[in-house]
Amino acid sequence: MKDMLGREEVLTEKDARELLLKSIESVHLKEAEIEIENSLNRILSRDILSPEDLPSFTRSTVDGFAVRAENTFGATEAMPAYLNISHEILMGEETAFELKAGDAAKIATGGMLPVGSDAVVMFEHCQSIDDKMIEVLKPAAPGENVIHAGEDCKKGDTILTKGHCIRPQDIGALAGLGIIKIWAYEKPKVAIISTGDEVVPLNAPLKPGQVRDINSYNLSGLIELQGGIPVKKGIFPDNYDVLKKVLEESFSEADIIIISGGSSVGTKDLTARLINELGPPGVLFHGVSIKPGKPMIGAIVEGKPVLGLPGHPAAVTVCFELFIKPVLKILAGQKRDSLQGLKKTVRARLSRNISSGSGRQEYVRVMLEERGSEIWAAPVFGKSGLITTLIKAQGTIVITLNKTGLSEGEEVEVELF
Amino acid sequence: MKDMLGREEVLTEKDARELLLKSIESVHLKEAEIEIENSLNRILSRDILSPEDLPSFTRSTVDGFAVRAENTFGATEAMPAYLNISHEILMGEETAFELKAGDAAKIATGGMLPVGSDAVVMFEHCQSIDDKMIEVLKPAAPGENVIHAGEDCKKGDTILTKGHCIRPQDIGALAGLGIIKIWAYEKPKVAIISTGDEVVPLNAPLKPGQVRDINSYNLSGLIELQGGIPVKKGIFPDNYDVLKKVLEESFSEADIIIISGGSSVGTKDLTARLINELGPPGVLFHGVSIKPGKPMIGAIVEGKPVLGLPGHPAAVTVCFELFIKPVLKILAGQKRDSLQGLKKTVRARLSRNISSGSGRQEYVRVMLEERGSEIWAAPVFGKSGLITTLIKAQGTIVITLNKTGLSEGEEVEVELF
Repeated sequence: MKDMLGREEVLTEKDARELLLKSIESVHLKEAEIEIENSLNRILSRDILSPEDLPSFTRSTVDGFAVRAENTFGATEAMPAYLNISHEILMGEETAFELKAGDAAKIATGGMLPVGSDAVVMFEHCQSIDDKMIEVLKPAAPGENVIHAGEDCKKGDTILTKGHCIRPQDIGALAGLGIIKIWAYEKPKVAIISTGDEVVPLNAPLKPGQVRDINSYNLSGLIELQGGIPVKKGIFPDNYDVLKKVLEESFSEADIIIISGGSSVGTKDLTARLINELGPPGVLFHGVSIKPGKPMIGAIVEGKPVLGLPGHPAAVTVCFELFIKPVLKILAGQKRDSLQGLKKTVRARLSRNISSGSGRQEYVRVMLEERGSEIWAAPVFGKSGLITTLIKAQGTIVITLNKTGLSEGEEVEVELF
Repeated sequence: MKDMLGREEVLTEKDARELLLKSIESVHLKEAEIEIENSLNRILSRDILSPEDLPSFTRSTVDGFAVRAENTFGATEAMPAYLNISHEILMGEETAFELKAGDAAKIATGGMLPVGSDAVVMFEHCQSIDDKMIEVLKPAAPGENVIHAGEDCKKGDTILTKGHCIRPQDIGALAGLGIIKIWAYEKPKVAIISTGDEVVPLNAPLKPGQVRDINSYNLSGLIELQGGIPVKKGIFPDNYDVLKKVLEESFSEADIIIISGGSSVGTKDLTARLINELGPPGVLFHGVSIKPGKPMIGAIVEGKPVLGLPGHPAAVTVCFELFIKPVLKILAGQKRDSLQGLKKTVRARLSRNISSGSGRQEYVRVMLEERGSEIWAAPVFGKSGLITTLIKAQGTIVITLNKTGLSEGEEVEVELF
């Protein structure tokens, strides 16, 4: 039975996402040179090559004695090798002497090996006879406990590649290479347009029939968390002229445009029409086979994603995770790598039966609870307009299209917020 | 065999961490009132109570017709209930009329129900006869598709509790409640003192025997990622007077002090002595049974954690994850909840054997690789002083104390960076 609104067929989640992602694969934001100190979570717009050989000198990886390895061959606790302590190597200074056969030089981790030496014996494998002599109790192989000059990387080696998202350890490594600035893509600007005649700003007194603007705030946080810059455009009535103006303004200043609340029946057609008027190709899909989130609109206008989200806060969260997050990442220049898309999940047991007969892929929010050594997931039921259910949930589970539900006690994978 | 340095027994990782955490359980940072727009990832210092009943009016959760449920009882497709369309409810305005028996009022999602109505029939379950009349094809139960006034929460209900870390959906919910400002703990300030005569700043020319300051940068990124404020104090020589001065200065301005590089042999005793002189109780442990990271120092001085990390970048990352991260979270006021400590992990197969004979809990860094539908983890071998290994690794696996190694093909849990 077709409903009285004559709605069209909807796409599967995967098809809808692919349509969007394919359309923006070749779109990239501008790049900017930034200091490594400000580069956490930024995406490289160019490969980074090593400017020099690293380390620049042969160094010790342990505290001990620099030796000629051959002088320790055959050494045992019963038959130690005896070596003269000829020098103590100072940290941070060039080691200018040559180590002679039969000698050992005291060296700390990171110290520069003298010419002539080719290994370091750890303190643990030595015993001191006096200030001038040690017993070596174990043989050292040539190269043992040593990093050779240039062993870490050579000048011109590719250290990090374009599309890589900078982590703390990358910043550390860049510092080690003396790289102070890097080229990164600018952060995507995301305009958030909140629509609905009933939606009012936070500071306005609430009259009967009105609700406050939840979605702009939820979306801002989600965008910030994914490295985007949220631009709250404000709340707009479901009016052609007003929405056309703010859409055009947003289009000129942002890299992604989100219209929240305007994709459910009534305003859905208005939003779709306005997007199509903004430029080609326009609306790619009108609906997705997910629950919640079915009325979602996905569009591309001259290379820019324009996304219409249903007004329900729970649907906003699901649509963000499934569509806006991957769009943001691709647009930000991140490599499309399934490993980078790994989610934070936990396995849990379901605390009660969930039936699903929607014919859509369902995303059920759950609360987690520890029972002894096990984690249990309790579905957060409640009507989709409830605000407090947003807070109670700690993650979501998926009921795929081919399932009619999940059973109490069943093991489920919970994707954590 | 005792080594020539006469080192003491070391603690297990868990015991060491518990010693630190127990000492700071009752320490809390100052609180500040902040706007919800700036509250992402901040920790609540007070419970949040609902200032009002929510919703303030009875509203529809679907697009359809507000009805008296009893007028639809028994309706079927063969025997529909006929209702007169008496009104269309406007969004954002008070619904001032009373719905009479036999009437239906067109209503959108979020619309305010008229007095007299107690359910909403979805468009999907109606057919229009003409502009004035519909057929209802399915009965609606009283309360169906409706959120009652006050159903979401009541004035005075606890919405979020002290110690909660604010997520995007929480900001959305707070906005929905009209809460503009909240009380949160201030972000912990973490002083980073880099020591070592061989360590030089990034912009200095590198002489033989010198290395650049990697750890301050790696640590800054790690601290930032965990919601702390990194304060790079700079690089200091292994000198009693110089280190004493910077330690005292850091102690007066920061909530946590990290000394990197000063805990390996040679400077280890100096660092420990300086910490003990700073105030009671001083050093809690000198060494931890982990690899890498064994020479770590854990101390509390007048309620403030002071942590001495080994100089190796790889050890810094491990020690941060195991000790500094939980210390930061507790100090920041976060609830000590094992669910919040859930890590981002992935199961993978090990690409080669790893032997472990250190007698310590070993943390092995791995690279991930997709082979068909499986993820494989390849250990990033390489001497601990290498910088490029920092970059190659995407996660770590643990070899617990009771294991002598792991086998090729074995399933392992990789904790992702």
